[in-house]
Amino acid sequence: MSDSLGIAVLGAGRMGGDHVRRIDRLVGGAHVAAVADTDPARASAAVAAVRGAGAFTDPVAAMDAPGVGAVLVASPGPDHEAALLAAFERGLPVLCEKPMTPDAEGALRVMAAEERAGRRLLQVGFMRRYDREYLRLKELLDGGGLGRALLLHCVHRNVSSPPGFTSAMMINSSVSHEIDAARWLLGQEITAVTVVRPGVSSGAPEGLQDPQLVVFETDGGAVVDVEVFVNCGFGYQVRCEAVCERGSARIGEDHAVLVTSGTTAAREVPRDYLTRFEDAYDREVRAWVDATRAGTVTGPSAWDGYAMAVAAEAGVRALDEGRRVAVPRAERPRFYDGA
Amino acid sequence: MSDSLGIAVLGAGRMGGDHVRRIDRLVGGAHVAAVADTDPARASAAVAAVRGAGAFTDPVAAMDAPGVGAVLVASPGPDHEAALLAAFERGLPVLCEKPMTPDAEGALRVMAAEERAGRRLLQVGFMRRYDREYLRLKELLDGGGLGRALLLHCVHRNVSSPPGFTSAMMINSSVSHEIDAARWLLGQEITAVTVVRPGVSSGAPEGLQDPQLVVFETDGGAVVDVEVFVNCGFGYQVRCEAVCERGSARIGEDHAVLVTSGTTAAREVPRDYLTRFEDAYDREVRAWVDATRAGTVTGPSAWDGYAMAVAAEAGVRALDEGRRVAVPRAERPRFYDGA
Amino acid sequence: MSDSLGIAVLGAGRMGGDHVRRIDRLVGGAHVAAVADTDPARASAAVAAVRGAGAFTDPVAAMDAPGVGAVLVASPGPDHEAALLAAFERGLPVLCEKPMTPDAEGALRVMAAEERAGRRLLQVGFMRRYDREYLRLKELLDGGGLGRALLLHCVHRNVSSPPGFTSAMMINSSVSHEIDAARWLLGQEITAVTVVRPGVSSGAPEGLQDPQLVVFETDGGAVVDVEVFVNCGFGYQVRCEAVCERGSARIGEDHAVLVTSGTTAAREVPRDYLTRFEDAYDREVRAWVDATRAGTVTGPSAWDGYAMAVAAEAGVRALDEGRRVAVPRAERPRFYDGA
Amino acid sequence: MSDSLGIAVLGAGRMGGDHVRRIDRLVGGAHVAAVADTDPARASAAVAAVRGAGAFTDPVAAMDAPGVGAVLVASPGPDHEAALLAAFERGLPVLCEKPMTPDAEGALRVMAAEERAGRRLLQVGFMRRYDREYLRLKELLDGGGLGRALLLHCVHRNVSSPPGFTSAMMINSSVSHEIDAARWLLGQEITAVTVVRPGVSSGAPEGLQDPQLVVFETDGGAVVDVEVFVNCGFGYQVRCEAVCERGSARIGEDHAVLVTSGTTAAREVPRDYLTRFEDAYDREVRAWVDATRAGTVTGPSAWDGYAMAVAAEAGVRALDEGRRVAVPRAERPRFYDGA
Repeated sequence: MSDSLGIAVLGAGRMGGDHVRRIDRLVGGAHVAAVADTDPARASAAVAAVRGAGAFTDPVAAMDAPGVGAVLVASPGPDHEAALLAAFERGLPVLCEKPMTPDAEGALRVMAAEERAGRRLLQVGFMRRYDREYLRLKELLDGGGLGRALLLHCVHRNVSSPPGFTSAMMINSSVSHEIDAARWLLGQEITAVTVVRPGVSSGAPEGLQDPQLVVFETDGGAVVDVEVFVNCGFGYQVRCEAVCERGSARIGEDHAVLVTSGTTAAREVPRDYLTRFEDAYDREVRAWVDATRAGTVTGPSAWDGYAMAVAAEAGVRALDEGRRVAVPRAERPRFYDGA
Repeated sequence: MSDSLGIAVLGAGRMGGDHVRRIDRLVGGAHVAAVADTDPARASAAVAAVRGAGAFTDPVAAMDAPGVGAVLVASPGPDHEAALLAAFERGLPVLCEKPMTPDAEGALRVMAAEERAGRRLLQVGFMRRYDREYLRLKELLDGGGLGRALLLHCVHRNVSSPPGFTSAMMINSSVSHEIDAARWLLGQEITAVTVVRPGVSSGAPEGLQDPQLVVFETDGGAVVDVEVFVNCGFGYQVRCEAVCERGSARIGEDHAVLVTSGTTAAREVPRDYLTRFEDAYDREVRAWVDATRAGTVTGPSAWDGYAMAVAAEAGVRALDEGRRVAVPRAERPRFYDGA
Repeated sequence: MSDSLGIAVLGAGRMGGDHVRRIDRLVGGAHVAAVADTDPARASAAVAAVRGAGAFTDPVAAMDAPGVGAVLVASPGPDHEAALLAAFERGLPVLCEKPMTPDAEGALRVMAAEERAGRRLLQVGFMRRYDREYLRLKELLDGGGLGRALLLHCVHRNVSSPPGFTSAMMINSSVSHEIDAARWLLGQEITAVTVVRPGVSSGAPEGLQDPQLVVFETDGGAVVDVEVFVNCGFGYQVRCEAVCERGSARIGEDHAVLVTSGTTAAREVPRDYLTRFEDAYDREVRAWVDATRAGTVTGPSAWDGYAMAVAAEAGVRALDEGRRVAVPRAERPRFYDGA
Repeated sequence: MSDSLGIAVLGAGRMGGDHVRRIDRLVGGAHVAAVADTDPARASAAVAAVRGAGAFTDPVAAMDAPGVGAVLVASPGPDHEAALLAAFERGLPVLCEKPMTPDAEGALRVMAAEERAGRRLLQVGFMRRYDREYLRLKELLDGGGLGRALLLHCVHRNVSSPPGFTSAMMINSSVSHEIDAARWLLGQEITAVTVVRPGVSSGAPEGLQDPQLVVFETDGGAVVDVEVFVNCGFGYQVRCEAVCERGSARIGEDHAVLVTSGTTAAREVPRDYLTRFEDAYDREVRAWVDATRAGTVTGPSAWDGYAMAVAAEAGVRALDEGRRVAVPRAERPRFYDGA
């Protein structure tokens, strides 16, 4: 056990706190060595049950704490870039929650910094790539038995949105998952996006264009439609149907227990993403710990973080301007070949 | 039985032949009195098993045959207008297969002729309105428990398209069903349409843009997306999910028998519309016979036929021009109030 | 239309009234010629909407009314035998609701009378043989792809039982459907039966052993378990899973519309058999009318009525005596070969 | 990390090897300290990837290795008793794979030894109690909303049985899971058992009564039927439907991805229990490690191990003798109150 990986967790909010618990109890070969949060009480609370972990308010101090061999970034998005640059300078492997950066500009700077560090250090937290159903869907598409994928029909529903959630965040925070999932499932880049605005649900807060229908086009000729509805009130639902030349494959519609009662046969719908994707988060962090202990980096890269950001930015523009918007293309640096 | 309704069936092809069988065996209170087809052998074959029915090549002669009290039009679309006008002149109630007319122009002329006849005579054959699942979905939406409908996600897949099927026909023949169903389910008119073109399936005939993603907007603020894929090879599938403010309701995904074998638990997918909508066709013709015997006209009207045609025409333009096309609005004549 | 089949319907209760409506409106080539009921008001009400049909209190008088060419028996079970014998004497084809007779003794007398008549005249109303799902299941089993059937798991649930329903009737009225369905699906005869008594539901009327678990064995080595629960309160459910050597096939679990709302994704469960088996009743009566007009008899025979009765009698004994009871075997008369 | 729990794993076969991997990679706060197997090569292979763990052929030597604080018994059933007694003498907490002992006699001796040790040390490996779906079913039944459970319909199917598997093992190895699950779900003890023998599948090895229908009765009036079919060839399937007074609840029928292709809409069926219950095994071992570190014992007790054994023995007798067999009742020792 002497080679257990010591991890500095930056951010002790809902997501960060959940990762502290995960590393402490559910992941072998790793331990929480330090926790940083701008709120010292929150940092202290997070390490209370973790023997030997220090609490910090300064993320850089946490990285420099004794025994730290890797960094998990779960702080607010605007803080990511500075944390990533500091970790790269120290040569520390990082798992960074999505979005990697709030905009495509910042993503380009992160990529440049990682390239300067001379080796891949960053895995971006697109955890759907670790969900059992998505993995099986990817496997089916790659297997080729269904032919080429022509359409992806996606649904992304939340019970309700947090305070301050905006129409733009429905794209760059919610739909960003579908952007990455579509790129990954199809192995294609997004080239254009259109947003159609249905009537606003009476369940949505004042001023929020909820739901939206977002339609992406890819350089491989696929079309991806996404219903995003963040105040639907009726369950957390993430569905994806890949329509291929010789068949279709669907995920996200299975719910464990069928209860027949009164006049219905009903399955329960999960209430939030931590329930639905619990397993994916576990598998993601384990994969990262395993890779880090083996000295490698796998999973979504900074390039994936950038590609998501640029498509999301175009999506927000399409929403605002009511028209199809082309997604600007950058050349993928050689550095990310194979990533 | 003396008041059995005598029906002249125009057109003895697949659809017309099926209606002859239906009226002869599955519908009480009506009988086939005459069958007309431009091919005399086909007309004769259709009446061979039907005692007392005459075979004709001229549709008007069939309408004028003894005992004819109503007309069922199942001839090719371009022949509909003349047949409808002749029936209206004779005051004969008509059930006319969709499309009522090949274009919106013709539909306006049919409406004018019916109005001249002074009373409603025409029911248009949008048989989905008689399908048990669609009826239940309509009831759920009208009931209000789920709130206002914001989005309809529709899928319309055929195993393969008949020879000569064009990209435009995918809209004005296939998607026309979704156009009518959406108008009827929502009680709203279509105002604009956009068509997105995915890569073409290798299973599609040369030159056919198959599949397509067609997105309609309505005057009630709903958005309707339709995947139409007429050479999918994997079953006849018609699905509709209505996403409402407080819940969603889905139809079209039930298949009778679950077979677990090898490594899968599988349901059979129907191969064509006569299997899937058998029950709807039966119910449609029965409803028409009942209404006709009672001296009334119910069901989809010429106005519905027109509204479908004008939306389909805009859809074809959107497909050709690669942009959002607004649907021109006519004023609904008072004559069709309540229809 | 001159050869329309005139039918005398005996019994104008719920089932009989439904058949009157069915023949009048949903079946071509036949009409209701007479209705008999011991309650003259009920008989009159049943024919009120049917032009040209006479109302009778005496079933024999109804059979002798002008234009009667066939008899549909929907009167109470104890009246069946006399009606059947009278119909046989007149050479009239009969569709008789189940149970053919209240006991196996009576069934033997009916068989003898039909044999004296010299030709098959009787079809017994086991309508599940006409249900689309059962038909598909039968086809799958006969096809042989799944291998020999080893077990049938059956569920038969009613929302509530009618007044006066007894523990014995749960077998000879409810489970009788499963007895016939099992014999038909498997092509095997029942040889023994055991009844296990779970605790009684608090929803069951005083004195009723509800639910019951009834286990049949067949001469082909299959085991058939049936949960019968007639006061379950949560929907009318008829399920059957055939477990075979190389696969299993299940029916009875499809419900049309999926509604996602609150915290569940729910399908509606039908409330009664007229909803669930509406289609089967239609198909059954049509098949009988078609066969009768063609001068033949198809479907379940008096032998099937007898075989059901003898198994049900053994079932009631097994319930009473708390032990496995062997089912006495009669030799099937040559007269019923091929039936 | 200094308080990480050192575990001696006894048995390095399929199950033991899987637990070594689980403790090493998927469980925080614990590590593999020693592995014992009668085959030294197998023991060495199991520890090869685990830093600091010793390999042994003698289970007692493994328990006595430095740093061992708890024992996981995954050796063959006949070796369990000796291992458990040695662990109890050392005061070591134990997680013992099922069956706890091969027979009820041995189970009584284990109980006596644990009681002599003066405190609860043993958790028995009935992992279904840790499966997410079973947990939810238990919660639903305990919640009371569905009323009292009257029937459990269970299905337990394996693709094929291992060499040497006997008809008795179908009960005391396979159905033993349903015995424990039924006792746990219902909170009732089993009082009688009947086994019905269907025809033998042609896919079963010579001499094996496969499938079987096993029917249990409980002291709370519930009836539990279990189809056990260990050479079904069509997937690993574990299903349970609890039929209650006011509703039913079903688990075990969800499979992740729906593939529509050819003529079917198919879900994949898992091939073995490590796939289906992967999550339950993880959760079981984590719960045991957590409880052990907290100095407590939770989960299924030696009494549960005994109760399963005595019901399984009665089941084997019922199979052999072709009759209902009552299950002998022991008094539950006070020592196990609350367990």
